[in-house]
Amino acid sequence: MGNPMISGVQVTPLQVFNGDAGNVMHALKSSEKDFSQFGEAYFSTVNTKAIKGWKKHHMMQANLVVPVGQVRFILYDDRPESDTQGMIQQVVIGKDNYHRLRIPPMIWFAFQGMDAPLNLVLNIASIQHDPNECDQLPLNSNKIPFDDWS
Amino acid sequence: MGNPMISGVQVTPLQVFNGDAGNVMHALKSSEKDFSQFGEAYFSTVNTKAIKGWKKHHMMQANLVVPVGQVRFILYDDRPESDTQGMIQQVVIGKDNYHRLRIPPMIWFAFQGMDAPLNLVLNIASIQHDPNECDQLPLNSNKIPFDDWS
Repeated sequence: MGNPMISGVQVTPLQVFNGDAGNVMHALKSSEKDFSQFGEAYFSTVNTKAIKGWKKHHMMQANLVVPVGQVRFILYDDRPESDTQGMIQQVVIGKDNYHRLRIPPMIWFAFQGMDAPLNLVLNIASIQHDPNECDQLPLNSNKIPFDDWS
Repeated sequence: MGNPMISGVQVTPLQVFNGDAGNVMHALKSSEKDFSQFGEAYFSTVNTKAIKGWKKHHMMQANLVVPVGQVRFILYDDRPESDTQGMIQQVVIGKDNYHRLRIPPMIWFAFQGMDAPLNLVLNIASIQHDPNECDQLPLNSNKIPFDDWS
């Protein structure tokens, strides 16, 4: 996780407590800096090697946790005023590398399932789902300089 | 889910959207009646046939979703002023019976993993974890008239 970060993106290690009957795995506390407001929590599953994206939210801050499997996120910053304009960033998180990924609004992202049989993403989003605040592009869009999904 | 409910307990069906690359599974929106405030989100896993409990929160409202596996919750109401004082209620939820379980404060509960290999519970809790607001009893406590964990 020592790679350069897109401005506003945060990757935070999370605690796991192991017990005889099962574990407890932290996700997000209201006292943490990553928390702005609660809009909606929902899960996305992403099949092995499958890819979801590209999406760019205009309003939503996403807080993403992967408690099952492993997921590769690719982020792209095309914000004209950004210090990291033009940067591509890869973040791989999952059960065995348990972190929370904060993605601010206006960042393009896509994500790929890296494990089997299940890759599960929890998004604790700052606003409720609203299709009008989200742009989408096809995976092979020439507006985003990334195509290494192999 | 047509069984009698302990007063204040709610079991709400949730939407699942299937897609080629994976699914989207709702958990909780801030506009829903079950939402009071966001304190913390965390996961608990519960091993197959293992049981966690009994616990009674004095302040926390729990909103529980099981996106992987299946979990059996047993709830017990010993609130002196409750319309349903003395009631035991069982709720089984999971991936294939996808509902949210709201448990108000002051209800005893325990839960058991019913599937394999993984049973995963998300709690979107109204307050942050605080050991001082939670009572615990052993599973075989004679204060709770339930022991059918077979």
